[in-house]
Amino acid sequence: MGPGPISVDPRVLRAMAAPLVGQFDPFMTATMNEVMALYRDVFATGNEQTFLVDGTARAGIEAALVSLIEPGDRVLVPVFGRFGHLLTEIAGRCGAEVHTIEVPWGEVFTADRVADAVRRVRPKVLALVQGDTSTTMCQPLAEIGAICAEHDVLFYCDATASLGGNEFRTDAWGLDVVTAGLQKCLGGPSGSAPVTLSPRAVAVVEGRRHVEAGLREPDDEAADEETAGRVIASNYFDLAMVMDYWGPRRLNHHTEATSMLYAARECARLLLAEGMDAAVARHARHGAAMLAGVRGLGLGVFGDTAHKMNNVVAVEIPEKLGPAGGDAVRASLLEDFGIEIGTSFGPLHSKVWRIGTMGYNARKDAVLTTLAALEHALRAVGVAVPAGGGVTAAQESYRDADRAADGLAHGAPDGVLA
Amino acid sequence: MGPGPISVDPRVLRAMAAPLVGQFDPFMTATMNEVMALYRDVFATGNEQTFLVDGTARAGIEAALVSLIEPGDRVLVPVFGRFGHLLTEIAGRCGAEVHTIEVPWGEVFTADRVADAVRRVRPKVLALVQGDTSTTMCQPLAEIGAICAEHDVLFYCDATASLGGNEFRTDAWGLDVVTAGLQKCLGGPSGSAPVTLSPRAVAVVEGRRHVEAGLREPDDEAADEETAGRVIASNYFDLAMVMDYWGPRRLNHHTEATSMLYAARECARLLLAEGMDAAVARHARHGAAMLAGVRGLGLGVFGDTAHKMNNVVAVEIPEKLGPAGGDAVRASLLEDFGIEIGTSFGPLHSKVWRIGTMGYNARKDAVLTTLAALEHALRAVGVAVPAGGGVTAAQESYRDADRAADGLAHGAPDGVLA
Repeated sequence: MGPGPISVDPRVLRAMAAPLVGQFDPFMTATMNEVMALYRDVFATGNEQTFLVDGTARAGIEAALVSLIEPGDRVLVPVFGRFGHLLTEIAGRCGAEVHTIEVPWGEVFTADRVADAVRRVRPKVLALVQGDTSTTMCQPLAEIGAICAEHDVLFYCDATASLGGNEFRTDAWGLDVVTAGLQKCLGGPSGSAPVTLSPRAVAVVEGRRHVEAGLREPDDEAADEETAGRVIASNYFDLAMVMDYWGPRRLNHHTEATSMLYAARECARLLLAEGMDAAVARHARHGAAMLAGVRGLGLGVFGDTAHKMNNVVAVEIPEKLGPAGGDAVRASLLEDFGIEIGTSFGPLHSKVWRIGTMGYNARKDAVLTTLAALEHALRAVGVAVPAGGGVTAAQESYRDADRAADGLAHGAPDGVLA
Repeated sequence: MGPGPISVDPRVLRAMAAPLVGQFDPFMTATMNEVMALYRDVFATGNEQTFLVDGTARAGIEAALVSLIEPGDRVLVPVFGRFGHLLTEIAGRCGAEVHTIEVPWGEVFTADRVADAVRRVRPKVLALVQGDTSTTMCQPLAEIGAICAEHDVLFYCDATASLGGNEFRTDAWGLDVVTAGLQKCLGGPSGSAPVTLSPRAVAVVEGRRHVEAGLREPDDEAADEETAGRVIASNYFDLAMVMDYWGPRRLNHHTEATSMLYAARECARLLLAEGMDAAVARHARHGAAMLAGVRGLGLGVFGDTAHKMNNVVAVEIPEKLGPAGGDAVRASLLEDFGIEIGTSFGPLHSKVWRIGTMGYNARKDAVLTTLAALEHALRAVGVAVPAGGGVTAAQESYRDADRAADGLAHGAPDGVLA
């Protein structure tokens, strides 16, 4: 029940045990095409170039940034948590001139603040995290695409921690490149990074196209000369090459990680069978119950809860416990109850626990069991907690949500059935 | 039965379906430590720094090279096939001044030839493939480590296609960095890259150490200043960071791809239970049978067979067939018999088929079935083949090998039992 990686859906685990075929077997290439189509729906996009990078979510981020950024390009990163810092790190290693704006941890940016910075910095790329698990905040994105379009800025988003559990609209929000991972709301294991690129982003990446020695044909030599000096600094993360491998040319690059491809396919199939809106509603429902539950135990919650991600909550460690007491509670949950919750990074280290309700763990039994165990673990270290306070508050949250849904289903005004 | 990826051992498939735990759960960190120990035995090394890079074999290559090479460093690559060209590509993108020596496809380098080039180029890094599946050649390495040590050159080897199926000795041969993949003789799926670094290589990489923003502590700031300007160009492939994650500090970097970790563990366990020498002998036995079998069908074999890898053979496509006929044979094998064999790259494109006998596919039934199917597929396109010529020759190869082994076991001189 941490902030991810999470327990994997058993159907995804089973999918990974399927036998493999060769990388150019018609079943394999058909499966790759199927995965592209599935992730278009997951990302809510019509982008042809929607595929997997073989590595963890961080590999997807680096592939996106190193393929877009040339040394000296200006990149703007609004930082509202640890994963914003990560974007500055990666952009910096790509040779970018990195500009940042920051808000205190626990807050998000207004669109105006981002617009001002875009006008001032005039970046080539705006790189922004949607959901930063380090603070649990979910950055609103809907108004930022228009700002980027107006100033001809490429809009990149790291949606690793949020996709599937919070509303996400690649095309409607004007995003150019989005990357994710399986190990959060998608219910899978770490190790595969779904990505999508708009036609505008594809044009930028294709402008740096290069076919590797040993595979080159005469036309490629000519194209190479045009892009000389602008070649992408990584071979593995060269998205122009990765697109040639996923596309009709099927030009050999890496050897696709087939078991992870099967996992990614099953994650998307399950999510789309449920429906993306229904999956987001499920995360909202269980996230609200967990939030109510920890408050019902008398615990404080960190940050601006109006902008909290549905799938994770940062719970303030009671001050009297101190860092050692906070660790003792986590250890008791793990050792006595077999439940893992997260610690935290940077300014929140030893200040909050992070409890996730995402992917396969966004379930009522997981929420109630965690709250029951947390009650015992807190009492064991001397924190006064109301008996049953967590479970009862979560159950009320579920009942309220059911009544509201029932009311909506019957067209009755709010509260009539209460 | 292609040159890899290959059919995965069912026990490895099953291992990937195991449930996941959080990345700092004691079971997880113990499993990571166990994997480090297992791969020390697979690589025949005492190197503490032996771990996995989360990506395909190519990710391991890039991680090794980008972590060793600073822009302007001289790198020497002896090229004897496509994967040598790949090393030049990746080293070039790292900003290296790349020098190459070449032999025609189908040959390997003498140690003297490499020594001459080392003396002339004085490289920081010698980067060399052991087994290049594009030509099926296996480069002898035993004498090259001493040359590198004498000239203070870091010796990197890509053992992806050969490890487990051909003799390999990291420490005895004086190798500094070795990378591999699971999808060849290790019997697993693509997507995880075992790597090992000698203490000398670790010192080079640690000299470029940098802790990322958001995780830095005061001591790290000081260390960062010392390495300023020498920071590794990739975050994901920064092996100093990856070592901090696998080491006792457990500093968060990527989120380990746990299902692939399980796969890597199972591959190594199975190989070590068999014994590394026994696994190499198994590959030699089935490789010899396949070689005898294709010759028994009247087909030619490409390259210097004295230096052929045990686990793959390049079979000359009968000239009268032409490229279309060659493809028709492969298509018949796949569609009629469910057996995949490989095409080839570059100068061998449409000239040879590549047939693998590696990992889980290094089995007698796989060899004989492939030869029986190939006989039919050849006859179907009008090639005159001796009836049963492939299977019979392979069976004789197995019988000869059994007799030789039996003779050895009884201390009898060669041939006495024949």
